[in-house]
Amino acid sequence: MKELTILNTKTDYIILRFLSQNPASYWDLLLNSFDNSINTINSIEKLLKENLIKYENNYFSLTEKGKELVKKILKTQYKDVICKECNGKGLKITEYFKDILSKFLELTKDRPHAIPEFDQGVVEPITLISRVIFMYYKGDIENKDIVLIGDDDLTSIILALSNLPNNILVLEADKRLVDYINNKSKELNLNSLKAVVYNVEDPVNEEYLGKFDTFLTDPVETIEGITLFISRGVSMLKEEGVVYFGLTHLEASYKKWHKIHSNLYSMNLVITDLLDKFQLYDLNPEDIVNKGYRVYTEAVNKLGIKPDKPTKPWYNSAFHRLILVDKPNPYYPYNKQIKLERNLYYDNEAYVTLY
Amino acid sequence: MKELTILNTKTDYIILRFLSQNPASYWDLLLNSFDNSINTINSIEKLLKENLIKYENNYFSLTEKGKELVKKILKTQYKDVICKECNGKGLKITEYFKDILSKFLELTKDRPHAIPEFDQGVVEPITLISRVIFMYYKGDIENKDIVLIGDDDLTSIILALSNLPNNILVLEADKRLVDYINNKSKELNLNSLKAVVYNVEDPVNEEYLGKFDTFLTDPVETIEGITLFISRGVSMLKEEGVVYFGLTHLEASYKKWHKIHSNLYSMNLVITDLLDKFQLYDLNPEDIVNKGYRVYTEAVNKLGIKPDKPTKPWYNSAFHRLILVDKPNPYYPYNKQIKLERNLYYDNEAYVTLY
Repeated sequence: MKELTILNTKTDYIILRFLSQNPASYWDLLLNSFDNSINTINSIEKLLKENLIKYENNYFSLTEKGKELVKKILKTQYKDVICKECNGKGLKITEYFKDILSKFLELTKDRPHAIPEFDQGVVEPITLISRVIFMYYKGDIENKDIVLIGDDDLTSIILALSNLPNNILVLEADKRLVDYINNKSKELNLNSLKAVVYNVEDPVNEEYLGKFDTFLTDPVETIEGITLFISRGVSMLKEEGVVYFGLTHLEASYKKWHKIHSNLYSMNLVITDLLDKFQLYDLNPEDIVNKGYRVYTEAVNKLGIKPDKPTKPWYNSAFHRLILVDKPNPYYPYNKQIKLERNLYYDNEAYVTLY
Repeated sequence: MKELTILNTKTDYIILRFLSQNPASYWDLLLNSFDNSINTINSIEKLLKENLIKYENNYFSLTEKGKELVKKILKTQYKDVICKECNGKGLKITEYFKDILSKFLELTKDRPHAIPEFDQGVVEPITLISRVIFMYYKGDIENKDIVLIGDDDLTSIILALSNLPNNILVLEADKRLVDYINNKSKELNLNSLKAVVYNVEDPVNEEYLGKFDTFLTDPVETIEGITLFISRGVSMLKEEGVVYFGLTHLEASYKKWHKIHSNLYSMNLVITDLLDKFQLYDLNPEDIVNKGYRVYTEAVNKLGIKPDKPTKPWYNSAFHRLILVDKPNPYYPYNKQIKLERNLYYDNEAYVTLY
């Protein structure tokens, strides 16, 4: 079809199809793209230049020319196909978990603020409880020993409140969070829960090796960074141990995913579940437009727009579950100090990361 | 916890937890296990021997001893957490797709029967339409050129009825199906749809190389077999091309998954979505108990039970989506004849496969 020659990537089509329903903010487009921020911005730039879409009052919409094109491209009117009941997560939030979430939200009102300089950014409540329900469904929580590296989401506290795990250990670089978690544990008599200060660049304490059933982390987005986080986690796992982590498209192309996943397979892990856009984050909207994130500065520089701060979650990641098929084979040996420094956090796709 | 020492695999726990809700048939346990048939049967055998579960009138249930144990193991009563609205698939079946499914079911009442000797076994209707909806959501159908290897499900016909794709090519070993699809295409004026006889062991026709956006297959379950199916598919893909296929746990351990996935990564593919138990199959219930499948004979031999034929779908697979991150790099070169013969279909985990 001749019209389609303008659209030379799948993301061009995804954006036009999405806008065929309703106008959308810059953040909506990022949320609904399956591509990284660079490619999504490039698509938007091209569609603007081709006069297929326009930007007014903080919203993108189809131009007359765009509407004509969309008529030819869409064989049927696009209607959202995501289940409304579960937001596409496939999971029911039963009373038991609803109660735990309410309790958690009440008890952690005094939580420390996320520090974007540490690449912290917490998942929103429905994501948090859905994550716990999914892990429970898979049999990875009840009577299990669980270790987390990094826990700005305070997943460890909601896990402890669920009363399901045996033991929960949090390894966290931010002393504020370590103290907060340990204080809550004491205050609420959550005997199973303990946090210690740990920097992922440091060797793993030998007493943790081979001790845990389940490892959860929401790591940085660089290849070396993720590989380091998961190396550390894997070395602490028992046989049949499982790994959960989030990986976004917004800061990681498919090529980067390919390298990251390949490293995971070399560690004797296999992906058993990969749920795209399962995790949504409550990033500070003020920070996003004010702190110099490339996702914002490139919108200004490349697209010539100044988006208002986001009004709802848009940053998302794919929730991964992997299982060990053999002894842990960490890419970075457990007893080696690994100094990544800036490379831990930052690469050329890092659009929602400070450096 | 002392009680837990009896339970030395995750599958022991999954089975007891499942039975804590209600008695369940042999087929229910296979459906709800995350493990392969061998390990699931081993778990059942052990739980029977330990007198934790019993088998009566076609149903497994907890014994008094089992109930006592479960009281200690379960920190809360187990309640199913799968969204009822979408059966855990996360997708809404909109009117448009509902209509297409009705039309499809009406028009294919005269379909050829599945031949188990060819490892044929068709997905049930909700799976079929959900698969199409998911591919549509991901942007892989509309205006796309689609190729299928093997199509006993007749997905090509429902795709053609959706009027969304550009062209659909079916490569199929069973001449009955090729003729059926081509006749339907003629009869219904589905210009986009064509089927040709093709055996996956044969080289790929050069005119198909690099010509398709989307490849769909529901292959055999051996490592070599799947690798061959996907090698053939990948060689026919354009840049950014995607692969969809189903892989079950019932005939494939995590170790086997690890080898299969590793082969896929070597072909420049990366997993973007992996939806466990997304696909359910309508296997002929009579065949399952009468044809000598190991999933049945091992129940008789190892467990000493004679399950009634299944009354609802139980065979399931995980729906995989992968995308090319570079040029196709098929594991088996497109121009080579590859003779796998019996090894195409059969290995020691093949419990629902004839040989």
